[in-house]
Amino acid sequence: MSFANITPAITKGMLMVSEHIKKIPIPETEYPRLVILGGGFAGITLVKKLSNLPLQIVLFDRNNYHTFQPLLYQVATAGLEPDSIAGPLRKQLESIKNFYFRMAEVHVIHAKEKYIETEIGAMSYDHLVIATGSRTNFFGNDSIMTHAFPLKQIPQALDLRSHILQNFEAATVTTDADQLESMMNIVIVGGGPTGVEVAGALGELKKNVLPSDYPDLDFDHMNIILLEGTSRLLGGMSEFASRKAIKYLKKFDVQVRLSTMVTSYDGLVAELSNGSSIKTHTLIWAAGVKGNYPDGIAPTSIEKARLLVDEYNRLLDYDDIYAIGDIALMKSKDYPYGHPMLAPVAIQQGNNLAKNLKRMLKSKPMKPFQYYDKGSMATIGRNKAVVDLGKLRFGGLFAWMIWMFVHLISIIGFRNRLIVFSNWVWNYFTYDKGTRLIIRKFIPKHKANDVTV
Amino acid sequence: MSFANITPAITKGMLMVSEHIKKIPIPETEYPRLVILGGGFAGITLVKKLSNLPLQIVLFDRNNYHTFQPLLYQVATAGLEPDSIAGPLRKQLESIKNFYFRMAEVHVIHAKEKYIETEIGAMSYDHLVIATGSRTNFFGNDSIMTHAFPLKQIPQALDLRSHILQNFEAATVTTDADQLESMMNIVIVGGGPTGVEVAGALGELKKNVLPSDYPDLDFDHMNIILLEGTSRLLGGMSEFASRKAIKYLKKFDVQVRLSTMVTSYDGLVAELSNGSSIKTHTLIWAAGVKGNYPDGIAPTSIEKARLLVDEYNRLLDYDDIYAIGDIALMKSKDYPYGHPMLAPVAIQQGNNLAKNLKRMLKSKPMKPFQYYDKGSMATIGRNKAVVDLGKLRFGGLFAWMIWMFVHLISIIGFRNRLIVFSNWVWNYFTYDKGTRLIIRKFIPKHKANDVTV
Repeated sequence: MSFANITPAITKGMLMVSEHIKKIPIPETEYPRLVILGGGFAGITLVKKLSNLPLQIVLFDRNNYHTFQPLLYQVATAGLEPDSIAGPLRKQLESIKNFYFRMAEVHVIHAKEKYIETEIGAMSYDHLVIATGSRTNFFGNDSIMTHAFPLKQIPQALDLRSHILQNFEAATVTTDADQLESMMNIVIVGGGPTGVEVAGALGELKKNVLPSDYPDLDFDHMNIILLEGTSRLLGGMSEFASRKAIKYLKKFDVQVRLSTMVTSYDGLVAELSNGSSIKTHTLIWAAGVKGNYPDGIAPTSIEKARLLVDEYNRLLDYDDIYAIGDIALMKSKDYPYGHPMLAPVAIQQGNNLAKNLKRMLKSKPMKPFQYYDKGSMATIGRNKAVVDLGKLRFGGLFAWMIWMFVHLISIIGFRNRLIVFSNWVWNYFTYDKGTRLIIRKFIPKHKANDVTV
Repeated sequence: MSFANITPAITKGMLMVSEHIKKIPIPETEYPRLVILGGGFAGITLVKKLSNLPLQIVLFDRNNYHTFQPLLYQVATAGLEPDSIAGPLRKQLESIKNFYFRMAEVHVIHAKEKYIETEIGAMSYDHLVIATGSRTNFFGNDSIMTHAFPLKQIPQALDLRSHILQNFEAATVTTDADQLESMMNIVIVGGGPTGVEVAGALGELKKNVLPSDYPDLDFDHMNIILLEGTSRLLGGMSEFASRKAIKYLKKFDVQVRLSTMVTSYDGLVAELSNGSSIKTHTLIWAAGVKGNYPDGIAPTSIEKARLLVDEYNRLLDYDDIYAIGDIALMKSKDYPYGHPMLAPVAIQQGNNLAKNLKRMLKSKPMKPFQYYDKGSMATIGRNKAVVDLGKLRFGGLFAWMIWMFVHLISIIGFRNRLIVFSNWVWNYFTYDKGTRLIIRKFIPKHKANDVTV
């Protein structure tokens, strides 16, 4: 592939949207239009680096806010409110010239005619970047999808918070021993960072918060069970981290069962791959994610629900469409199955694509993406975390402080940093979690007539 | 009425709940049971003052949290998150001996058989305190009830916040001039403290926040209109406060129309009593409240949707039922139509009833309730408030600082005080409001199939 081939001049395309389709109003401009789908880590990093360029930038997202997903589990476990980990996209990007935000779900990409179809109308593009991230993967299991709690979006975290608290309220007035057992058990499926972190946080709640909140319940009967299908926790980290995580989780009274999967779940009983079962009203599903993209992409450019891209994050078989972040599958010598679906990859791809778009505008050749792995970490709870930094592996208090520091500086916006920090200081010294509020009662999907609010 | 008559000995009553009704489980005790309905200002003040008494105290509330209602309008206008103004009831009351909380809506009081019927079962009582507060009064106008936004509960405040933001998102993509006008107008009905405060906060949003968030909208076309049925704002305060409030509201670009009422509203157009109309998608209803009580009370003990009580807050014609706070209508020489429905009255009645119950336990005579009016105040926005303190009336920066101080020290719990204070400092210096998040999209009632979540 020659460089000439991968650096087409950015020119203003013709508006190909059919006259019959409602067009989304946007100010007219002489610049070519770059449309970005998704305001996650990849999308907002890209926008921020494209300031003052001769481009009209339009960002689409179904929400009006960016979510700092690594701390979502703390919203679910009553440690933080949503405003601590979410920031309004318009505010975060208000200094970018020629930038427009449109809140809408994007349904279809019409690559040939160069426009997208969304819930609020259609918009043409000259260049398109797909940064739509990932969503929960239930691996086709309908019973689990209906009854389990995923943990990828803020409303899901709030639902889980409400459900857990409602459950204990109901437990105080039940006289049925079986029901009480189901209510007191919480099962977490998936031993990756999310599963480990939510299990640890629930362990902290059990230890420090719930017994004084519910003096009429016996928390010796509360079981927090973490299931992992493979033979170790934190599969993306070192063996050292896996071992330490199990040790720390035990201190928070979390039971870990390895090489165990859930085969079905009806909202009351989880059937396991080893033939046994667990009675539980609360099954948290953190067992996997998959790419989340609009219709219209050729099947040849899709693999394992992710979009195949070249080393410049350009979508295979497309000239003017790019994909960055979780959704992008870039195979390379070091990462033959693609990069891990993590925030640092998304941020680095956003940065690299921004640089390449600038090069393109100057008719310079693009530079291939190179992932710089800064290490990985997971926290289990108070004073307990594990960190892999290159060949360095460590755990405990120091790891926990590094985890907190890295997460604090990664949160976007000084206000959010301040609020998260204040909450953490408060929680640390008081052993309390402040947001045990059932603001909107959780109504199970199968009872809610499919109204999602 | 002799004192002997009003101080019946507290004795443990017989469980009169019929065998056919599901009883709410509660630990057995030798003490008489005091059941309190409602965890508002009146209810929690009462509980806190009843520590260490030979009573089993059971508090019912439909929510698991106490709401600091005076700041609800700041949640609606993106200034604060719910956790700043709400605190978990279990946490707030965990130090009280023999105290139990049950989250449930209470449906019926069976005074003769001495038990209450709730959504989770029945419970007998020896003494009952009704502290169920007030709810929005739509004065029987169905069209307004269906389409207007009330502002009495946290989910309502979040709905309003989402709706306002969704509305501006939609305004950026509308091409219909009429629709745009409806979207840009906000009408507030009711010139009491809530109406004035929400109008002022919206004025601040219009001035400092929205124009940079929505650069493609022209905020000169945004009208914030406050309607009041009587001839002045803040009817419960001095003429001085009314005049100042109008002056301050003008500075925040709020249009005030006095002696004007809304006769009907279909979600698009508000018809006014003077024959004119206003196109608006957003009508906030702060025009009145009414008592909110379970069924079962004799009509002779009810007047204007409030419960008639004697000077000891005892329900007329009942020996063992009390009512405190907004719901109680105590006629006296100074207050021939009852006390104002305000937090200070509720707190003082909670305190007085606690003292009287203690006296009763010692077979001492009760003392009549005497309201100590500490003054009243309302804020309009940044540096602007009005305060009536006895014969003293003043406005401006000093009044605003007093308003903030009084509200800060009135919030229950150090954590909430800290969070509110941090948010206020942040908002003041940055001219920003941090919580402009559409966490759960608002779906209008008439479209949501009546599912309330």
